[in-house]
Amino acid sequence: MSPPRPVVWTGESVRLLDQTALPRRLIEVEIRELDDLVAAIRRLVVRGAPAIGVAGAYGVALALRQRAREGWAEATFAAALNRLRAARPTALALALGVDAARAQVGAGLGAVVAVGHRLAEDDERANRAIGRHGADWITARLGTRPLRLLTHCNTGALATAGWGTALGIIHELHERRLVDVVHVNETRPLLQGSRLTAWELAQAGIDHRIQPDGAAAAAIVGGLIDAAVVGADRIAANGDVANKIGTLGVALACAHAGVPFVVAASASTVDPALPSGAGIPIEQRAADEVLAVGGQRFAPAGARVYNPAFDVTPAALVSALITELGAGLPGPAGPPGQPG
Amino acid sequence: MSPPRPVVWTGESVRLLDQTALPRRLIEVEIRELDDLVAAIRRLVVRGAPAIGVAGAYGVALALRQRAREGWAEATFAAALNRLRAARPTALALALGVDAARAQVGAGLGAVVAVGHRLAEDDERANRAIGRHGADWITARLGTRPLRLLTHCNTGALATAGWGTALGIIHELHERRLVDVVHVNETRPLLQGSRLTAWELAQAGIDHRIQPDGAAAAAIVGGLIDAAVVGADRIAANGDVANKIGTLGVALACAHAGVPFVVAASASTVDPALPSGAGIPIEQRAADEVLAVGGQRFAPAGARVYNPAFDVTPAALVSALITELGAGLPGPAGPPGQPG
Repeated sequence: MSPPRPVVWTGESVRLLDQTALPRRLIEVEIRELDDLVAAIRRLVVRGAPAIGVAGAYGVALALRQRAREGWAEATFAAALNRLRAARPTALALALGVDAARAQVGAGLGAVVAVGHRLAEDDERANRAIGRHGADWITARLGTRPLRLLTHCNTGALATAGWGTALGIIHELHERRLVDVVHVNETRPLLQGSRLTAWELAQAGIDHRIQPDGAAAAAIVGGLIDAAVVGADRIAANGDVANKIGTLGVALACAHAGVPFVVAASASTVDPALPSGAGIPIEQRAADEVLAVGGQRFAPAGARVYNPAFDVTPAALVSALITELGAGLPGPAGPPGQPG
Repeated sequence: MSPPRPVVWTGESVRLLDQTALPRRLIEVEIRELDDLVAAIRRLVVRGAPAIGVAGAYGVALALRQRAREGWAEATFAAALNRLRAARPTALALALGVDAARAQVGAGLGAVVAVGHRLAEDDERANRAIGRHGADWITARLGTRPLRLLTHCNTGALATAGWGTALGIIHELHERRLVDVVHVNETRPLLQGSRLTAWELAQAGIDHRIQPDGAAAAAIVGGLIDAAVVGADRIAANGDVANKIGTLGVALACAHAGVPFVVAASASTVDPALPSGAGIPIEQRAADEVLAVGGQRFAPAGARVYNPAFDVTPAALVSALITELGAGLPGPAGPPGQPG
């Protein structure tokens, strides 16, 4: 079975697959009010930059319906869309999704919903291209042999509109029968690796090992990994990459060991307005994510935390950026499109 | 209050503070049978290289009493001591503690117990010296100012016979009023950082932040850390350091950012018989440590893991090795004893 779609427009509501409950429970939540969607995005019921981009577009449709139903003033509507746009600050996709849908508000609900549909279709098409380009780049670099890969967080069908970015490359390599094993960082604090990526890999029949995030450097430096493949939430114009906290450590270990560190994302993830990663806003999340696991508290009472949701990997540590356009940073000159 | 001692010889049993229950419950377990001690060491009821060294010596006393009580043959006794010695393979201290106590078996129970007492006293004295040498090295390097430190796992009073190794340096700096904040890696899979180190720091009144292990690189590269201080379970003759899984990632981030990476351990942790870290046996631990947290399972059924208990940091990444003898690798020439 393929995993259910993370975000669906039902015609009158947004239906989300609750990713906080996976893999133990498969629950769908149906959302009719804009602020419930904002809360769901913050709580990571839906997550992954491409998926929250689609959710953002459908959210504008939700707000339009609510405006009609509740007689919102223009200012109330605008404020609601701003809350939606700012629900999570790091990923570019959410703001882009909201803005693209908002631009169609004058054309009516159907046009707004169509933006969400189009983003989902574009994303899935981009994912497939990313998978092919990434698999081509990796095999050109490492040869056509069974590969031991490492990934972090979840970048699969649950995080996107289908197939996946980094996980799309792994799916593509698997279809080419070139995956030996995937080391999956569990991805604390919210365990997207052990909960979501392992679940998707198991469904696809891809052999994998879950490991503590702290074991990634040992695996890479110890010669157990041929390439690391991760996603991105926002990429600066110079190629610096914001991605799930823990990504930078993977990149540093890869650089030390001479292992390719591959970043996969749609071209729209590149923010031309940001000269470098220093300008990427980093979301700080709640202490309880770190101090408690599954509602059970481990740390002493009163403990404080450092809990950034993302880190920034300098472009110099990235062996290849793979987008649907090919390998390389999209820009005026276009991506090189060749393994490099 | 100061934390209870992790290992005590009661006169007829070994009493352990159950570190798997901290900080939520303060439970002491009393052990009278050798194999119960082996199981407790494996289960990390007592942990930390120096503490299990002391437990190993007292374990020989336990075996001596059991031999008399149960009429063990010499071969039974020898096999029991070998099980004890091999309960955890990476730390040198356990084997050294068992061997030192075993050498006194001919002199009787009192002499065997005295070995455990002496190891505990030596360790505490060494810890105090490590604290002073480490604080001296760090202030010589960074100046006398409030420091933002990072540590991994637990190297405090719970892991040693008192005071601590890396945490001993932090305690010493705190007494000199030179600690601003300590970033504590939670240390998956068993959360020794958030459960034990945070508890010891809170008791000492030292400000700290618990962070996911994956956030260490972001904190270090992001300029939030002045120095990282960690312990060691075994050090090869060339200075390669085996320590809790996740240590290597901290070292790589420190090297990238130019932040001092300080290793603190007693001189007996250095194994002159091992030319390099490649020869250090690395304990692989059970899947459930990674797949379940506090008895609650997060990963899909049937998932497999990569769960090494330790990693090896190459000597080239270590800014300073601090032992009770000073800064530098003890050896024929002796440690330099000067900040370098």
